[in-house]
Amino acid sequence: MPDQDIKNLRVNQKRIEQRIFELAKFSDISGAGVNRVAFSQAEADARKYIINIIKEAGMTVSIDAGSNIIGRREGQNPDLPAIAFGSHIDTVPEGGKFYGALGVIAAIEAVQILNENRIETKHPLEVLVLTDEEGGLIGSRVMIGKMTAEALEVRSHSGKTVGEGIKFLGGDLNNLASAKRDKTNMRCFIELHIEQGSTLESEGINIGVVEGIVGIFWWDVIIEGFANHAGTTPMNRRQDALLSAAHLIIAVNEVVNSIPGRQVGTVGRITAEPGAPNVIPGKVIMSLEIRDLAEDKIKSVYQKIVGKAKEIAKKTETKITFTSIDAKSIPAPMDSKIKNIIAESAKDLGYSYKFMPSGAGHDAQNMATIVPTGLLFVPSIGGVSHSPKEYTKPEDLARGANVVLHTVLKIDKRD
Amino acid sequence: MPDQDIKNLRVNQKRIEQRIFELAKFSDISGAGVNRVAFSQAEADARKYIINIIKEAGMTVSIDAGSNIIGRREGQNPDLPAIAFGSHIDTVPEGGKFYGALGVIAAIEAVQILNENRIETKHPLEVLVLTDEEGGLIGSRVMIGKMTAEALEVRSHSGKTVGEGIKFLGGDLNNLASAKRDKTNMRCFIELHIEQGSTLESEGINIGVVEGIVGIFWWDVIIEGFANHAGTTPMNRRQDALLSAAHLIIAVNEVVNSIPGRQVGTVGRITAEPGAPNVIPGKVIMSLEIRDLAEDKIKSVYQKIVGKAKEIAKKTETKITFTSIDAKSIPAPMDSKIKNIIAESAKDLGYSYKFMPSGAGHDAQNMATIVPTGLLFVPSIGGVSHSPKEYTKPEDLARGANVVLHTVLKIDKRD
Repeated sequence: MPDQDIKNLRVNQKRIEQRIFELAKFSDISGAGVNRVAFSQAEADARKYIINIIKEAGMTVSIDAGSNIIGRREGQNPDLPAIAFGSHIDTVPEGGKFYGALGVIAAIEAVQILNENRIETKHPLEVLVLTDEEGGLIGSRVMIGKMTAEALEVRSHSGKTVGEGIKFLGGDLNNLASAKRDKTNMRCFIELHIEQGSTLESEGINIGVVEGIVGIFWWDVIIEGFANHAGTTPMNRRQDALLSAAHLIIAVNEVVNSIPGRQVGTVGRITAEPGAPNVIPGKVIMSLEIRDLAEDKIKSVYQKIVGKAKEIAKKTETKITFTSIDAKSIPAPMDSKIKNIIAESAKDLGYSYKFMPSGAGHDAQNMATIVPTGLLFVPSIGGVSHSPKEYTKPEDLARGANVVLHTVLKIDKRD
Repeated sequence: MPDQDIKNLRVNQKRIEQRIFELAKFSDISGAGVNRVAFSQAEADARKYIINIIKEAGMTVSIDAGSNIIGRREGQNPDLPAIAFGSHIDTVPEGGKFYGALGVIAAIEAVQILNENRIETKHPLEVLVLTDEEGGLIGSRVMIGKMTAEALEVRSHSGKTVGEGIKFLGGDLNNLASAKRDKTNMRCFIELHIEQGSTLESEGINIGVVEGIVGIFWWDVIIEGFANHAGTTPMNRRQDALLSAAHLIIAVNEVVNSIPGRQVGTVGRITAEPGAPNVIPGKVIMSLEIRDLAEDKIKSVYQKIVGKAKEIAKKTETKITFTSIDAKSIPAPMDSKIKNIIAESAKDLGYSYKFMPSGAGHDAQNMATIVPTGLLFVPSIGGVSHSPKEYTKPEDLARGANVVLHTVLKIDKRD
């Protein structure tokens, strides 16, 4: 096929839209939206639907030991590693139609269009449908060889443990290492998602080219004052842990806003003890979360907050301690060459785009530790995600899939 | 007895101390401190001990329909109403030795001293041991005729309902009205307590003459923002209900401190929803309590807080609503003549004293609605109360009892 014809290649928007809505029918009846938690019967049924359309798109299907679905189309050169792309189809309880699903449906669509137009690639192509993204990026964790015995014991929303779930979906716990991938068999990984934020929609931009997935650092903050009778303790004799916490919550907001950049800081959880209207709180426990693309930035924001906390502790006669929580994830920068190819593809397609961080976690952050990885976003209305109200316009679904298609073709051609 | 000898009359400090410690032995074994919740077996046993020492002090004993213990010593003039004084012996779970108990032991001591010195009074004297103070001033509530069917159904710490407990202690639910008192049979009521605050101890003052028991007004404050992803929602697009709540908590403190007076304002309870470290809080529910001797002051503080809340709601793009909670109690001023007699008695005894509000609730606030009522405090170390650590020095126990004794004698003489 002449280069000009390849440039004009477009995905079938109607088919993407139709498949998104067909896939959404696989949902447990309880609750609104799409209920398709990993390892549920609804997910198992949805996987059969996906396997069928992978075959319809001209691929062979295998299930790896981590129960990831791999659709594969061979390339002209059997020695080259596969260009992989995809996402996941499990949802949170009462999730939406688009998150995850789009990345999978678009990947299948891209291969189907290549087949329909009889375009061969040098590299093999692989569509990855990664297991239990919502439960902790499980499928990609198996692929990068970081699965642990403890993680297999965790009880998932389905009621099954992660290990039981992997077996239920056809995985092989005795042979997990066989699912491990590396550069010898994978050239790169590309993931398409809805944004789960409102930046693209509010700025009227078609494609978000992700620079990296932010690191997430968590702390438990304990504020100790002195619990006392709210009636008999004059205002000037109080050591009110909640008043101290209030100053700290405002300080977190002010510190994060005082520095240029896109870092965010959040206090999302708070408890005050003893928690009675007529007792001055003696102890407050709250969470602190800081996210940014740069670990240094996270650390410097944290240090500024700790500095403010010292002043607040002195002023309010309370004690404030920060304890780092192990659940943190370090920033995952995306591959700069792939990032540029995604941007170039968007530009060639006539779409507006911007470089941006991903504030949420994705399988791409795992894959980035083993192969060059790219992540791109399309707008989600109001930034709503993980919700029955999640919505992305059909033309945006197609734009995302077109960028995936042309990014794959450009990578294949340039190697 | 000559007036000068009466002036020199003093209670027996050793006996008060000994009885306080004997009474403290009646405690359920679970936990530290004194566990003698109303209607428990420990309390029933303690009441037998109290009835014995009331008899030893030369009084007759009756149990009214509300299960209040009434020790009575007749006066010279059978037509006069009784001068009543006392307090309660029930404790909170893991309470202390002194709160409540002192008022009862001191009242018995005052009568015993009169008997030992063969001093007659014109008025009958009554020692009142009021039932279930901690559960909502139950005994005094029966005495003022304000008991309700609902309140009898409330489950107490003992496991029994209040109604079951009253029966258990010898009360008569079918005849509660018979326990009702008024000015025709009660001249006044005087209650001695430990302060449950640290004002007297820190200022080195012997006696607190209570001007009134503060009113307590409660509100539920609901702050509504928008729950959103803490990673994908930039700082300038947040409607963080907890950040708004933090501003309001500080505003409560600032407003209460900005006005001269002894009013107090407290946020003691807070919940943030959904309450996850990685979600911006969409809703906060917290308590607001304001106490003062003057209802007008409470209302004006509240209005100033509401004004601040409007500014905060606008600035943080949240909605703040206040809902008044029915549990409020209105301020209960003490009788000014009795207040002055208490102060005069303290002065005559060579004790330092100060007029002060009571920030905590007491049976005296109920009794004040039917007869002239006085309330006095002695220091409690560190202001600690409702705790195993509660402590009042023996000489302060005796000072309180001496003021009760001489206040009773002065009231008796002047009528």
